Amino acid sequence: MNVLRPIHAKIVGGFWERRQRINRERTIMHGYGKLGGALGNLRMAAGQPGDYQADADDGGMTLPFLDSDVYKWLEAAGWELSRGADPALAAAADEAIAVVAAAQRPDGYLNSFVQVVKGGVPYTDLAWGHEHYCLGHLIQAAVAWHRGLGDDRLLAVALRAVAHLPAEPGVDGHAGIEMALVELFRITGEERHLKLAERMLALRGHGQIGRGRFGAEYWQDHAPVREATTVAGHAVRQLYLDCGAVDAAVELEDEELLGTVRRRWDDMTRTRTSLTGGMGSRHRDEAFGDPYELPPDRAYNETCASIAGVMLAWRLLLATGEPKYGDAIERAMFNGVLSGISLSGTEFFYTNPLQRRTHRVGSGGGRAPWQSCACCPPNLMRLLSSWHRYLATRDEGGVQIHHYADAELSSGEIRLAVRTGYPWHGRVSVEVVATPDRPWTLSLRVPAWSTGGPPARHTRHWKAGDRVELDLGTAIRITEPDRRADALRGCVAVERGPLVYCLEGIDAPAELEELAWDGDRAPSEVPRPDLEPEMIGIDVPVAGGLTAGAIPYYAWANRGAGSMRVWIPR
Amino acid sequence: MNVLRPIHAKIVGGFWERRQRINRERTIMHGYGKLGGALGNLRMAAGQPGDYQADADDGGMTLPFLDSDVYKWLEAAGWELSRGADPALAAAADEAIAVVAAAQRPDGYLNSFVQVVKGGVPYTDLAWGHEHYCLGHLIQAAVAWHRGLGDDRLLAVALRAVAHLPAEPGVDGHAGIEMALVELFRITGEERHLKLAERMLALRGHGQIGRGRFGAEYWQDHAPVREATTVAGHAVRQLYLDCGAVDAAVELEDEELLGTVRRRWDDMTRTRTSLTGGMGSRHRDEAFGDPYELPPDRAYNETCASIAGVMLAWRLLLATGEPKYGDAIERAMFNGVLSGISLSGTEFFYTNPLQRRTHRVGSGGGRAPWQSCACCPPNLMRLLSSWHRYLATRDEGGVQIHHYADAELSSGEIRLAVRTGYPWHGRVSVEVVATPDRPWTLSLRVPAWSTGGPPARHTRHWKAGDRVELDLGTAIRITEPDRRADALRGCVAVERGPLVYCLEGIDAPAELEELAWDGDRAPSEVPRPDLEPEMIGIDVPVAGGLTAGAIPYYAWANRGAGSMRVWIPR
Repeated sequence: MNVLRPIHAKIVGGFWERRQRINRERTIMHGYGKLGGALGNLRMAAGQPGDYQADADDGGMTLPFLDSDVYKWLEAAGWELSRGADPALAAAADEAIAVVAAAQRPDGYLNSFVQVVKGGVPYTDLAWGHEHYCLGHLIQAAVAWHRGLGDDRLLAVALRAVAHLPAEPGVDGHAGIEMALVELFRITGEERHLKLAERMLALRGHGQIGRGRFGAEYWQDHAPVREATTVAGHAVRQLYLDCGAVDAAVELEDEELLGTVRRRWDDMTRTRTSLTGGMGSRHRDEAFGDPYELPPDRAYNETCASIAGVMLAWRLLLATGEPKYGDAIERAMFNGVLSGISLSGTEFFYTNPLQRRTHRVGSGGGRAPWQSCACCPPNLMRLLSSWHRYLATRDEGGVQIHHYADAELSSGEIRLAVRTGYPWHGRVSVEVVATPDRPWTLSLRVPAWSTGGPPARHTRHWKAGDRVELDLGTAIRITEPDRRADALRGCVAVERGPLVYCLEGIDAPAELEELAWDGDRAPSEVPRPDLEPEMIGIDVPVAGGLTAGAIPYYAWANRGAGSMRVWIPR
Repeated sequence: MNVLRPIHAKIVGGFWERRQRINRERTIMHGYGKLGGALGNLRMAAGQPGDYQADADDGGMTLPFLDSDVYKWLEAAGWELSRGADPALAAAADEAIAVVAAAQRPDGYLNSFVQVVKGGVPYTDLAWGHEHYCLGHLIQAAVAWHRGLGDDRLLAVALRAVAHLPAEPGVDGHAGIEMALVELFRITGEERHLKLAERMLALRGHGQIGRGRFGAEYWQDHAPVREATTVAGHAVRQLYLDCGAVDAAVELEDEELLGTVRRRWDDMTRTRTSLTGGMGSRHRDEAFGDPYELPPDRAYNETCASIAGVMLAWRLLLATGEPKYGDAIERAMFNGVLSGISLSGTEFFYTNPLQRRTHRVGSGGGRAPWQSCACCPPNLMRLLSSWHRYLATRDEGGVQIHHYADAELSSGEIRLAVRTGYPWHGRVSVEVVATPDRPWTLSLRVPAWSTGGPPARHTRHWKAGDRVELDLGTAIRITEPDRRADALRGCVAVERGPLVYCLEGIDAPAELEELAWDGDRAPSEVPRPDLEPEMIGIDVPVAGGLTAGAIPYYAWANRGAGSMRVWIPR
């Protein structure tokens, strides 16, 4: 395999700089303030008194996985500190790391729910207990601190916790540890971590977990990971599992396993992915539905699933270099991921439907400052904190730029400066700031939606000061749904560049359910600085000679909790 | 109020005779065989050893309401024995009654889950415990045995159990007892039962139950029953609650309360009811969705909700005489209710979507001989066993026939014989077999769908042998969805008489997802004796010069678990 490797990148301006800055300056410390309960759980595991917090609303489920929120936050903090010092953040992270280390038992075991609530006997409820899952997130945090900061305090904790796992580990109801173990192998070089990941991947899919409430496919235990032809069950679990499968396949050079995941990904992307990159149509079990079951109103599209989709596509992009994976990352990032967080950076959506009706019974419907099941907010934090690492890669032939932002890139002797108005404008300028004295190839992803389309690969004997200009073209696109997508029939959507647009009731001349697309008139661009600097909205012609103002989907529900729709009836 | 009263009726042939016969000869004893676990629970409450059965699948929820399945079955058995003797059924019912009586505590309390599993302290978890709900079903069974057979064994048990309720009863998470208490008032004449129902209706809607997992509207505790403007939350709970509200309103002559329910019903019927009469769009909380949220594929449409819809519309019909309620009963009975039970009478659907795609992950999708949460099967049994009681009513002016079947009707000196080919043909003949020597009015409901439409009210000085002939016309109808029903856009449905039709993959020339309605050719009728005697199918023209065979929706999934759709893309 010709595996691509991420290169050093620093985002210095524009759309993504703003997002990383808000994440750093607001979201992460906001999150730390909300993690008191989960940190308190770990303090209890360390022997301090307290009330264990494990309930999702009153009368609801008991959540055994709140430790993972702390670990995801620590991962974000690690990436963030590697981008630049921040004493307040460093102090908060130091405290959290100390709490985590103190909670670990002398035998290495670490899970506050089992230690505090369940009497301390590990691995008795792998189906629902999330013990491996939480450990996976601990490892990921440790990897971030090791890679980004050379700080191995969490790595020491993680290695002791992994050493506590039995040789025959069983199968956790929620996949995720597999990719973490491969990462642990990568940074330690210890084969046993890779072997353990391989074993866990092999154990799942044989009905060992049981059918539970939602059937064996809920936790992908209905078919082995190298045999299942389609994604199934809980979307995040499936996507995390496939991330681990790709990671293992790459390290083991297992083309067969990689091929299986790739075929599953193609099917999923064609039949079970919303226009926004959202996945998981069903509320009941947070699951993928049938092919083309893509209800705009009831699509679950958990923020974590969009993020997991980015993680999987990224791994497939590294493993294969195929631009379709970059396209998928871009679609998810600009739409179904960012919709999960408010423009202010301190309010969140757990689900990301493509339609909301005006009429609602009861309260709710708006973004929330936190969630009782708070898997999504720290997942957003760690992705945004590390987003610069997704921009560009290298291989033996040169450098590949996958995502466009104002950024400084460097790989060995190569240094590049990227400038762009992306996503509002499709022009990209790449300047060679430094180069070795030999030819190499600069590859630029041309998105499938691009209405421009110059050559995407430039092999040259570059000189400092050389420049490549790209204009991807961001004409407004009117998108038709697949005719098999029953819930979208008779509608169109509006896209521009990487952005999916939506109508909000607040910008419409009538109730959204009464509007109909007027195909005889052309939509037009309109600046929307009221929402965000540089933002371009689209005025959509609707029946009756009127227009309705569409905005990027990611920006919806930032002016109250009203109606919204992506797919507009003709 | 001019309240209609049901009259004596006996179904003697045709469509509904077949359904009642299968219910009597197969379904009810099949059900008794499946109630061993629930009866065992009651035996444990009576002191016998055993393993309490309370789990919906492994790893799933604990079900505290299995007693109600026994009560619903007993209600069915009571109605059935009142239609004619059956020694085997009588013996089974006697045994069940003895078990129920033995389970009752000396203080009158009776709930096997509380007695066996929860330590015997009553009313500590009204939100989820279903204690009032189960008691309501016990009362309904007692009412059936009293009314149908003059047998008051269950009534004695029920009265003792009701007497155990505290004066301030609190609010049960699942409504249902209210209508039962009104019935108890009707048969005993004791005002306190009506007062208790009134009190329970007044207590709900003030947030006393809490928000639980799904919000206060889940159990209709978000707004008082006389103030809520729309249905909300768990569909069966809402519908049972409104049944109780109508019953209380009628007895209390409370026009305001009745008016509130009627307005809610109008809104629900217009915006939240599937073409099949199914209600409750959401799987997650078995709830009504937003207005026009009617996904064919994911519609929950619990069989119990369709049945509860019949119960509510029946009460509104009795209270007002308005034919729209009869139309709604008919739509539900012939479609969303009957779809819940196989043609064989021994397999059931819990949910009744209007579409199923071909591709399915995992097994399932077919009808099941029973369900771990088995509320629907005995609900079907009791409705079918008493369906003759829904055919016709009387008031001071005469007799009203609401539903057409080969039947003998009698009310005082009036005796009528109805003959019809319904639902396959729209001709109805009503013969006056006996009549008092004075004028009276015979009213015949003309369904809204009728393409015939003669006068529906005949006031005459009738003679024995007089006959009224009605031809309702059953031309095939092509039905367009409301444009606000997003999930149905661009589709049409086929109806004929009271029946909604559907395509099944097994009858189609291609995958259903590939078919498109061909509006240039007319659909045509075709006999389908392969499925049921007299059945008329419809050949639907589809693109490519082909036809696909549509069958009545109620008959789907009787030839395996394939694809199906009611709404057909143009």
